[in-house]
Amino acid sequence: MVTAKFIGGDWGTTHLRLFLCGQELTALEQLDGPGANRVCGAYEKALDSLIRAWTDRHGDLPIVLCGMVGSSIGWVETPYLPCPVQPEQIARACIELRNGRIRIVPGLSCRNKLGAPDFMRGEETQLLGALHLEPVLQRGLHLVCLPGTHTKWAILQDGTLQEFLTAPTGEIFASLCAQTTLVPADVNVKSEINSDAFARGLRRIRESPETQLLHRVFESRSLRLSGELAPGHAASYLSGLLIGSDVSGALRMLAPSVRTPVVHVIGSSHLSRLYSTALSALDGEVRVLDGAAASVAGLAQIYQLTRSNN
Amino acid sequence: MVTAKFIGGDWGTTHLRLFLCGQELTALEQLDGPGANRVCGAYEKALDSLIRAWTDRHGDLPIVLCGMVGSSIGWVETPYLPCPVQPEQIARACIELRNGRIRIVPGLSCRNKLGAPDFMRGEETQLLGALHLEPVLQRGLHLVCLPGTHTKWAILQDGTLQEFLTAPTGEIFASLCAQTTLVPADVNVKSEINSDAFARGLRRIRESPETQLLHRVFESRSLRLSGELAPGHAASYLSGLLIGSDVSGALRMLAPSVRTPVVHVIGSSHLSRLYSTALSALDGEVRVLDGAAASVAGLAQIYQLTRSNN
Repeated sequence: MVTAKFIGGDWGTTHLRLFLCGQELTALEQLDGPGANRVCGAYEKALDSLIRAWTDRHGDLPIVLCGMVGSSIGWVETPYLPCPVQPEQIARACIELRNGRIRIVPGLSCRNKLGAPDFMRGEETQLLGALHLEPVLQRGLHLVCLPGTHTKWAILQDGTLQEFLTAPTGEIFASLCAQTTLVPADVNVKSEINSDAFARGLRRIRESPETQLLHRVFESRSLRLSGELAPGHAASYLSGLLIGSDVSGALRMLAPSVRTPVVHVIGSSHLSRLYSTALSALDGEVRVLDGAAASVAGLAQIYQLTRSNN
Repeated sequence: MVTAKFIGGDWGTTHLRLFLCGQELTALEQLDGPGANRVCGAYEKALDSLIRAWTDRHGDLPIVLCGMVGSSIGWVETPYLPCPVQPEQIARACIELRNGRIRIVPGLSCRNKLGAPDFMRGEETQLLGALHLEPVLQRGLHLVCLPGTHTKWAILQDGTLQEFLTAPTGEIFASLCAQTTLVPADVNVKSEINSDAFARGLRRIRESPETQLLHRVFESRSLRLSGELAPGHAASYLSGLLIGSDVSGALRMLAPSVRTPVVHVIGSSHLSRLYSTALSALDGEVRVLDGAAASVAGLAQIYQLTRSNN
């Protein structure tokens, strides 16, 4: 029988993902729970009730939690750790609860390539995991893309997270689909992306990458008016324009300093596929890592590093 | 006593503006009514009840209407007239109702500078009015900006509307304020724009105009997190980023073909001020025309041209 060693959790704004982890530092079991926006501050109660089946079987396991659980609306606020940051620093900066049985991972801050303040919570743990799952990332300069509601573009140098940049691409896509005439009102945003319409949006970005997005997005309406785009494909075309603009701009801004042809993408299968398609179309080479696997590996890294600290 | 000659109306999506016009082709009186999204198709009834006081006094006046009243959800659908278009063509393409007593102005279509289909309804009438109010526009090449929910950038050559480009800047601003974490949830979008925060957004665009908007807009959140931007100024800063991106991109794309330092801005006083500030900050010279005055002058032009056609 495999022995459970600890419980890891990525507690984001809209979802909680809990992992029961063993010796191999991969998840034995997984379960989902309510995000930070739904627990109304009752993190402890929500957590204890969710993990009861695991603790009944395995006893009082150590717990490592990352994400919004450490934010100002979280269980306990962990200060942002300023970049550049090494994995050991993240582990050392965890805030301990219940006499060290629970550790909350800090988020990271930086001045991004444009000189603006930038922040992440949760992605730092996925990046730690990626360093463990993809040892090639521990040497040299690498560009990593973590697509999501707030897509993060991170630069790793010799295993240190140097800086990152946030593009709220997913949040803007959802907002434009829900609230504007760019997409027909009856379109379900969560429906499947049509790959042809998505690729067509990407091609438009590739044609003139220097054009500002504001002068492109009306096409998801005007092409319908002219009969050149099916109403049901407007959201997919818009997604191609947005992700294309994000990827194209990020490659131009960040890839030159990295000088590596491979961009690592860490995310859900759906978003990783869209970003990989965009990166390939815009001359990037791609290697995809599963977002949940990266979270588990990162939580496991922090569990191990904090154990060896004690 | 001044004699009323006709009634003009700009019937947009959200507002109807009616003008009682006399010999001088400027409005004698004005009144407001429900937009196309509120009359539920009952245009005739809404119009007749609104203008009763005027027709009681002045008899059955000719009526000229522009805007969404001529769209597929309007009173009668007027086909889009393809650019390049001269003023006389717009007058000739009006659709007549009530035996010619009511004329509905057609919208315009074009292939814009980016090769995409583009459309306008209502702004063509303001452009006609501008040609009348600003005779300098009748000779040479000119760039005209009509800021709004869907901002239009139009190129006039010797009094002919050559082409235009739509940026849904106002619609995207409203959507991002209402639905995203970029602006605090309790901010009233319709509140005053803070000019310092707006100018700060513009400066960021000016610093690196080639940066894509998606890599800028998270700043309206991150600067609050870092304590560098007051929560109440986030919407103003975001407005500066959006209008700055629109103006900067449009000047780069369209101004070279125009080779004139003056951009004419036609709109409401609020939006004209914001766009003028952005144009000035981004090296454009500006001349502002009042949007309602341009509508009246355009409707009057069409009234005169259709009279001489008969």
